Amino acid sequence: MTVTDPPQPSRSSRPAQPGRRGRPGYDLESLLHVAVELFNERGYDGTSMEDLSRRLGITKSAIYHHVPSKQELLRLAVDRAIGGLFDVAEEVRTMPGPAIDRLEHLVRGSVHVLVDRLPFVTLLLRVHGNTEVERDALARRREFDRFVADLVKDAEAEGDIRPDIDPALTARLLFGLVNSLIEWYRPQRGIDCTELADAICKITFDGMRIRSFAASPQETS
Amino acid sequence: MTVTDPPQPSRSSRPAQPGRRGRPGYDLESLLHVAVELFNERGYDGTSMEDLSRRLGITKSAIYHHVPSKQELLRLAVDRAIGGLFDVAEEVRTMPGPAIDRLEHLVRGSVHVLVDRLPFVTLLLRVHGNTEVERDALARRREFDRFVADLVKDAEAEGDIRPDIDPALTARLLFGLVNSLIEWYRPQRGIDCTELADAICKITFDGMRIRSFAASPQETS
Repeated sequence: MTVTDPPQPSRSSRPAQPGRRGRPGYDLESLLHVAVELFNERGYDGTSMEDLSRRLGITKSAIYHHVPSKQELLRLAVDRAIGGLFDVAEEVRTMPGPAIDRLEHLVRGSVHVLVDRLPFVTLLLRVHGNTEVERDALARRREFDRFVADLVKDAEAEGDIRPDIDPALTARLLFGLVNSLIEWYRPQRGIDCTELADAICKITFDGMRIRSFAASPQETS
Repeated sequence: MTVTDPPQPSRSSRPAQPGRRGRPGYDLESLLHVAVELFNERGYDGTSMEDLSRRLGITKSAIYHHVPSKQELLRLAVDRAIGGLFDVAEEVRTMPGPAIDRLEHLVRGSVHVLVDRLPFVTLLLRVHGNTEVERDALARRREFDRFVADLVKDAEAEGDIRPDIDPALTARLLFGLVNSLIEWYRPQRGIDCTELADAICKITFDGMRIRSFAASPQETS
């Protein structure tokens, strides 16, 4: 990606806009947003640079001014998603306190990343592994999953999480629920991020059921 | 779909197989399985009857012997998925007992349908709404979601489910978790269906956290 003035083959038909690089209206950031939207609609494999150029209303060479390849757009997009999740994991890794509290922090932080970066995480979660960028993303997702499973295991060892479910399965179900947000959550529906994170933590940490102490004394075990 | 002997254009090159209709090795059921597998790989829109014919190794006219159109294959596939879920809902509708128990029955039954009909439910959950069959499937999914939300509402009214989360959100999160199975559950991984349903119900109904009675007396409220 160069920062010098690029060749702009179709600019001659429009008025010059001094002080902006590339096609009017697009910088790398807005271009990336449109690309991710299109990848999510048609699949990464099903989207060509030609499709992207049509959607943006600019030439392919104007796109190549910003980014060398379609794969580089994918890399930037999945990095933003997985990078957000790893930032939360890193916070949790250095946090003091019981594993169960750190797990809750990880869930809340991940919900925030999903909501803030919804199209990016959607793309990440639908990656197939057909290219090096995708395989790398899948490897980092597995690393994140292992981090969650280890945290569940630690919380179980500390006596705070029920021991009757395999920790890897608990971790998978917990993040299955978190990740399912991409299927239905839309910010305009009026549920805010904190309300959503609260609901997820209440359900998964404490359960939906209102428990009567008298009725279920075995639950202290 | 006819049950009389069909035209079999390329059969002349193979030995006759008395007693089988259509192309050797395929009846409607096995054809449907291959079609669903392909739809899940490439997307319904991205799969042509030509692709299907190549995957099956039979001519398009041999496919049309079994089924009049690609859309009919989709209809059969999503019917099998949504039909299974509605069968469970119907059982639950006529069951006696508290709503919370009926909700648990619905979750367990749905997990069984997902596991038994995994490729069909996967297809159902990825439908976009571009055709009449897809829009009909989406409408039936919404009907199922309303059924779940009503059951959560009833259980809340009966005092068995925590009232501090909107019932529609609780329902969505609960089935978000159930539906997330399509992303990772594979029968060969050695987790059986009952173990899976148990884990999901333990986590969502009772929570992961081991609660100390002494520490949290407010939880009776």
